Amino acid sequence: MYLLVHGDREYLRGPGEELQTDLGVLDVPEDVEPGETLETHLGEEFLVRGLRGPDLFNHLERTGAPMMPRDIGLVVGHTGAAAGDRVLDAGTGTGVLSAYLGRMGAEVTTYERDAEFADVARQNMEMAGVAETVDVRTGDLTAELDELDGGFDLLTLDTGDAADVVRRAPDLLVSGGYVAVYSPFVEQSREAALVAREVGLSDVETVETIQREMDFGERGSRPSTAGVGHTGYLTFARNE
Amino acid sequence: MYLLVHGDREYLRGPGEELQTDLGVLDVPEDVEPGETLETHLGEEFLVRGLRGPDLFNHLERTGAPMMPRDIGLVVGHTGAAAGDRVLDAGTGTGVLSAYLGRMGAEVTTYERDAEFADVARQNMEMAGVAETVDVRTGDLTAELDELDGGFDLLTLDTGDAADVVRRAPDLLVSGGYVAVYSPFVEQSREAALVAREVGLSDVETVETIQREMDFGERGSRPSTAGVGHTGYLTFARNE
Amino acid sequence: MYLLVHGDREYLRGPGEELQTDLGVLDVPEDVEPGETLETHLGEEFLVRGLRGPDLFNHLERTGAPMMPRDIGLVVGHTGAAAGDRVLDAGTGTGVLSAYLGRMGAEVTTYERDAEFADVARQNMEMAGVAETVDVRTGDLTAELDELDGGFDLLTLDTGDAADVVRRAPDLLVSGGYVAVYSPFVEQSREAALVAREVGLSDVETVETIQREMDFGERGSRPSTAGVGHTGYLTFARNE
Amino acid sequence: MYLLVHGDREYLRGPGEELQTDLGVLDVPEDVEPGETLETHLGEEFLVRGLRGPDLFNHLERTGAPMMPRDIGLVVGHTGAAAGDRVLDAGTGTGVLSAYLGRMGAEVTTYERDAEFADVARQNMEMAGVAETVDVRTGDLTAELDELDGGFDLLTLDTGDAADVVRRAPDLLVSGGYVAVYSPFVEQSREAALVAREVGLSDVETVETIQREMDFGERGSRPSTAGVGHTGYLTFARNE
Repeated sequence: MYLLVHGDREYLRGPGEELQTDLGVLDVPEDVEPGETLETHLGEEFLVRGLRGPDLFNHLERTGAPMMPRDIGLVVGHTGAAAGDRVLDAGTGTGVLSAYLGRMGAEVTTYERDAEFADVARQNMEMAGVAETVDVRTGDLTAELDELDGGFDLLTLDTGDAADVVRRAPDLLVSGGYVAVYSPFVEQSREAALVAREVGLSDVETVETIQREMDFGERGSRPSTAGVGHTGYLTFARNE
Repeated sequence: MYLLVHGDREYLRGPGEELQTDLGVLDVPEDVEPGETLETHLGEEFLVRGLRGPDLFNHLERTGAPMMPRDIGLVVGHTGAAAGDRVLDAGTGTGVLSAYLGRMGAEVTTYERDAEFADVARQNMEMAGVAETVDVRTGDLTAELDELDGGFDLLTLDTGDAADVVRRAPDLLVSGGYVAVYSPFVEQSREAALVAREVGLSDVETVETIQREMDFGERGSRPSTAGVGHTGYLTFARNE
Repeated sequence: MYLLVHGDREYLRGPGEELQTDLGVLDVPEDVEPGETLETHLGEEFLVRGLRGPDLFNHLERTGAPMMPRDIGLVVGHTGAAAGDRVLDAGTGTGVLSAYLGRMGAEVTTYERDAEFADVARQNMEMAGVAETVDVRTGDLTAELDELDGGFDLLTLDTGDAADVVRRAPDLLVSGGYVAVYSPFVEQSREAALVAREVGLSDVETVETIQREMDFGERGSRPSTAGVGHTGYLTFARNE
Repeated sequence: MYLLVHGDREYLRGPGEELQTDLGVLDVPEDVEPGETLETHLGEEFLVRGLRGPDLFNHLERTGAPMMPRDIGLVVGHTGAAAGDRVLDAGTGTGVLSAYLGRMGAEVTTYERDAEFADVARQNMEMAGVAETVDVRTGDLTAELDELDGGFDLLTLDTGDAADVVRRAPDLLVSGGYVAVYSPFVEQSREAALVAREVGLSDVETVETIQREMDFGERGSRPSTAGVGHTGYLTFARNE
């Protein structure tokens, strides 16, 4: 899939597909390449652009509020997610985190309890070009834990019962592997952190991140008056 | 390279190397695998662990304050850095950002003006297992701009004169490619953002990130009294 | 003046005045006391409430964005504003800061360049009950500096040229007196702080304050997703 | 009491008292005035300075970590504390909050359970010049609630069982009066806020305040790398 860009307008289309807008009809060639310019039958130009992570956040079909690029980045930074990692994820949702991880070469198994949401997530992985490496499973990870073999490098949890999975993290993770729990709430984060300590994980920490945009206007420089609200706490822990 | 871990102690060694400590002498076998346990001649056990990003931050030889895992993560999240990306980096320093990017499958060309620092960075890339994909060049990127062909997906700048490189970003980046500038200072960030707008980059934003650890003690939950200081502003912009 | 409160509705009226709303007509007795309940001719009840600082922020006539209660509080906390203080203020605006200071027993001389704004501020001081102790002068403090005798305990500045007044702070303030500068911008705050150091003031600091509301919902506790934006930097310095 | 200041050194002394340091002996005259310069028998000069709020924070005898000037300021700003207010306070501690309130003309009744702490607080009120208006009572406010008549404008609570007092706030406060609860912990703040809503107080909010110092160095402007840690949450509510 590519982004077809005309000014502020962006559309997601694959090779061989058609785009119909008030700017005319555009047929995307089978051999299209990013960087090319395509024309509608009315002569309007669209730039062909490859998808990057933030485009996934903006264009994938949403089944809830997806994790924001900054929070995904924090998970990557704090855990060192990298190519070749085996990742076990719960609470797929829109699948933006899974797609980011897949695009950096990780092999992801992700669980989504809602069957319709899981279907959307599978389509999203197709669009993100990671259907081969991200396995979206319909189901509840907590109920499947006994079936899983372990050997994961990374465990990423965005579910209300994350603490129950954290309790099993020592069996699921390789030595040095990380668990990351995303939660909007203090209480859930506290529980995840306490369970992590209880089962012997190390480097347990919960961080809260406040991000603000700067305004660089003619009168001077200042943090934005708009403010950026809380998204979630991130709890990290590492297997011995 | 692997981490040899005994309680709180961690040592970096490769296959065939020797570790001498007060716990005895340990010879790392040529065919060592992560997850194994090795014994010193005194019978003390060390766990063999693969390196992850945060280990690079903790164990690479430093030639200055390296970029922190959280800031590296924010660069990745905001730009969607992924496998296959061609990255142009300036201000290598210790090389932790380059190593993170290399480990997620990006191909990185990074410039370091200080020849000794560049040598250390090259050794660090060896230790991080990314010497093949991260090309550390001794020199000043600003002076080399005319020699570079462009076609980069990502431009990451951690130098005082970043704005001069931002000015050339439209020629260096593919359509949809990102530039990310890290700077501790308001004035440098402002200059980078204003130049980015001036040369027609889109989605220009400077963000400031405040991260705090939570304390989950017996008396209750609260943000840490220790506080976490400012590291740097991150300025992002995207090529049309 | 009192607040006449009926549910979420609040009206400002003095003794002897009349309130006409869709709830009926209400005559405020000359001898009204806070805590009393008054009835309209339709039998609707209004509670009589004395004005407190936050009511001034909400009900005074605005000639611009008034300083927020939290920023006023920070000025008070950092400078120890107290009864008997002689305060010199510039940039009166709506006058909420002056009114707060007057209500805690300080004697305030405040300058407002805009004659209409100054008139509104004078009416506001009447409503706040501090017309006796807050002297609103129409004019530019910077131009009047040579006429002033000094001996102030506190200098509070909310003007673009605050640094010019800071330069004269050693002559204006008693030993141990404070200057406080409010500015939305980094550059103005920097200039005020550098001038403060240059003229020998001590304890020079510029602080930035981020305040967030907590949400205590059924699902858990978290910082508000609404975010609270930047208001201003506060620069403090003390006379030797 | 006055501060005797010589460079960075500050000593608290009253009229008629003596200061003995390595700079010599200094007798403070009975009729000393702030702004005067006094000399030791060795000819070293000390400046006489009146005490302001931040001096109380720095020089009063501590029986625990006193509330910081910024948090005191936030209580004042959010509640509009002013001259003539009747304040009921619990958890006196060092008494800095009570002293600030006393110095702005409020009449304060404050409870401290620890008899020794209460004695120190009484001496501190003498030093702060507010012994007439701040009544430090040894005892537990929660146990005394039935003895109190109400009619307070402000209720300030810095105790672990603040929620129990909040429950009685409607009886204790005048219409429009405020309760302010200071607590380091999420759980206590949550409880105070929920009880406040339960008993019908309005404008219930819990705020968290992050304050950072700015560094204005030669290389540029930035938030301090030192960071400022969490002090406490402030919960406010208002009586109907």
